[in-house]
Amino acid sequence: MQESSFDLKVFLAERKEQVDQALQQCLPTPAGLEKTLLEASRYSLFAGGKRLRPILCLQAAEVVGGDWRAVMPAACALEFIHTYSLIHDDLPAMDNDDFRRGKPTNHKVFGEAVAILAGDTLLTEAFGLIASTRQNGSLPVDKLLEAVHLLVKSSGYRGMIGGQLIDLECETREVDLVMVEYMHVHKTGALITASLEIGALLGGGSPQQVRQLTRYGQHFGLAFQITDDLLDIEGEAEAMGKTPGSDAAKNKKTYPVLTGLVRAKQAAREHVDEALAALATFDDKAEALRALVRYLLVRKA
Amino acid sequence: MQESSFDLKVFLAERKEQVDQALQQCLPTPAGLEKTLLEASRYSLFAGGKRLRPILCLQAAEVVGGDWRAVMPAACALEFIHTYSLIHDDLPAMDNDDFRRGKPTNHKVFGEAVAILAGDTLLTEAFGLIASTRQNGSLPVDKLLEAVHLLVKSSGYRGMIGGQLIDLECETREVDLVMVEYMHVHKTGALITASLEIGALLGGGSPQQVRQLTRYGQHFGLAFQITDDLLDIEGEAEAMGKTPGSDAAKNKKTYPVLTGLVRAKQAAREHVDEALAALATFDDKAEALRALVRYLLVRKA
Repeated sequence: MQESSFDLKVFLAERKEQVDQALQQCLPTPAGLEKTLLEASRYSLFAGGKRLRPILCLQAAEVVGGDWRAVMPAACALEFIHTYSLIHDDLPAMDNDDFRRGKPTNHKVFGEAVAILAGDTLLTEAFGLIASTRQNGSLPVDKLLEAVHLLVKSSGYRGMIGGQLIDLECETREVDLVMVEYMHVHKTGALITASLEIGALLGGGSPQQVRQLTRYGQHFGLAFQITDDLLDIEGEAEAMGKTPGSDAAKNKKTYPVLTGLVRAKQAAREHVDEALAALATFDDKAEALRALVRYLLVRKA
Repeated sequence: MQESSFDLKVFLAERKEQVDQALQQCLPTPAGLEKTLLEASRYSLFAGGKRLRPILCLQAAEVVGGDWRAVMPAACALEFIHTYSLIHDDLPAMDNDDFRRGKPTNHKVFGEAVAILAGDTLLTEAFGLIASTRQNGSLPVDKLLEAVHLLVKSSGYRGMIGGQLIDLECETREVDLVMVEYMHVHKTGALITASLEIGALLGGGSPQQVRQLTRYGQHFGLAFQITDDLLDIEGEAEAMGKTPGSDAAKNKKTYPVLTGLVRAKQAAREHVDEALAALATFDDKAEALRALVRYLLVRKA
C-alpha cells in the first residue's frame, strides 16, 4: 500500500460486502426438512471469512476486462469449497479444532454428523453455482465447463485434498522443506491459484492473460501461506481470532519452523516480487491485485 | 424376467464389466504423495458394488438411441457419488458401520481422517468426470453443464444429503409414513432418478423421453428402497453380505416397519407397475429397464 495511492482497505470492504450479499442468495433460508443442513452450512459460510478467494476471482475477471457480476457465482463457488474444507478440517478425526475465527467450529455447534453433511453440501452445491450460470447466457458454456474442471483439479486429490492428506501425515513423520512446499502448493495454493485462473478465464482473458494471472496466483498462494505460518509464530491473538503458537503446539512443521524466521520472511518477499512481476503488462486495473499481494508482507491477521 | 425372454443376468454381468473397466480408468494408479488417498478411494469404489446407477444411466441413453460409450464418464460419476455417500454414511459419527458388502468399511481400514478425505475426493472428482467429456466433443457442452446441475440437485441438500439428514433425525424422533417416503425419495430415489434423467439427456432424448425415463426412475427408486427394507427383514445374510435385521436393531423406521409386510409388498408392486407404464411408448430397447425393475420384486440381495 505504501507504494500506491490505491486504498486497499476501502476496496476490500466494498468487495467483501458484494460477495457477502451474493453468498446470501446462494442457499435458501433454512426451512422445511433440510433446515438443520442449511443452518449448519450457513453458519460456517457466514462465520467471518475475509472472502479472499472470491475477491481474487472477481479481480482477475476485471483485470482482463470482464464483468465481475457475471463471474460472481463462480466466485461464490470458491468460497463454498474453502468453507467446506474448513468444516471437514476442523472435525475431531482431522485437526480437532474447537474454535475458528473466534467462534465454535461447526461440529461443536451442530454435532459431527451434521458437520460432515454440511461440508458435503457446500462442496456439492459449489458446482451447482457454476452450472446455474448457464441459464442467463452471460458466459459461454464451454468456459463454464472448463471452470468446473479447474475447480475439481484444484480442490480434489491433485490439489487441496491431496495437500490436506500430506498435512495429516506430516504430524507423524519426518518432514523436509520439499514436503512442506508440496503441502503449501496443494493445500492452500491450488485453490487460490484456481481463483485467479477461473476469474481470468470467465472474464474473457486471452490464454496469455490467463497464464499471467495464474502465475500471480501461484506466488500469491505461497506468500500467503508463509506469512500465515509467520503470523502463527509472531502474531497477536486478538487480531487473529486464534491462539498464536497453535501450529507449534500440534507439532506442525511449517515453513518458518524448518527454515527459521529470516529465511521465511525472505521467501515471502521473493514470492510477492514474483507475483508483481506476473502483473507487469497489466494497467491500472491490476492495482488492487498489486496492493493485495504487497499487503501480505505487513498483515496482522 | 418370467414375462420376457430377455436374459437379465447375462446383460447385467456384461454391463457391470464395462462399467468396472471404465471406473478403473477414472483414477490413476495409487502412487506419489496422494497414494493413500487414491488407495482409499479405490478401495470403496471396488468393494463389490453392483453398479446399478451407472447401468441405469447407460441404459437410459441407449433407450433414446444414444451411444452408451459417450455417456460412460457421467455413468461413472454417478457411481463416484454413490460410493462417497456410503463412505461418509458408514463413519462413526453417522451410521457407525464396521462392514459393508461383507468387507470392512473404509474408516476401519484407512482410519476416519482418510475416509472423510476419500469421500470428499470421490465427490469432487465426480464432477471432473462429467467436465472431462468436454474434450472429445462427443456430447454438447450445454447438456454436460445441465448434467452437472442435475447431479448437484439430486445429490445435494435438495436430494441425497437432505435424505441422509432426515435418516439421522429419524433415529431420535417420532416418524410417520410421510417422513419415511420423503427420506426414500431423497436419500436413494433422487440419485437413481438422476441416473435415468442424465442418461436420457446425454443420450440425446427428446424432452418427452427424458420425462418418461425420469418417471421410470422415480418409481424404480421407491420400489428399490421398499424391497431393500423388506430384504433387511426377510433376507438371507449370505446373499446380502450383511446381517438381516440390522435396521431394526438400530431402531430405523422403514416402510415395512410402519405399514407391515403386506402393504409394503403391495406398494413395491405398484411402483414397479408405474415404472413399466412409464416405458410404454418405448420399443425393445427398453427390455433391460423393464426386466430390471421387475427383478426388484424377486431380488435376494
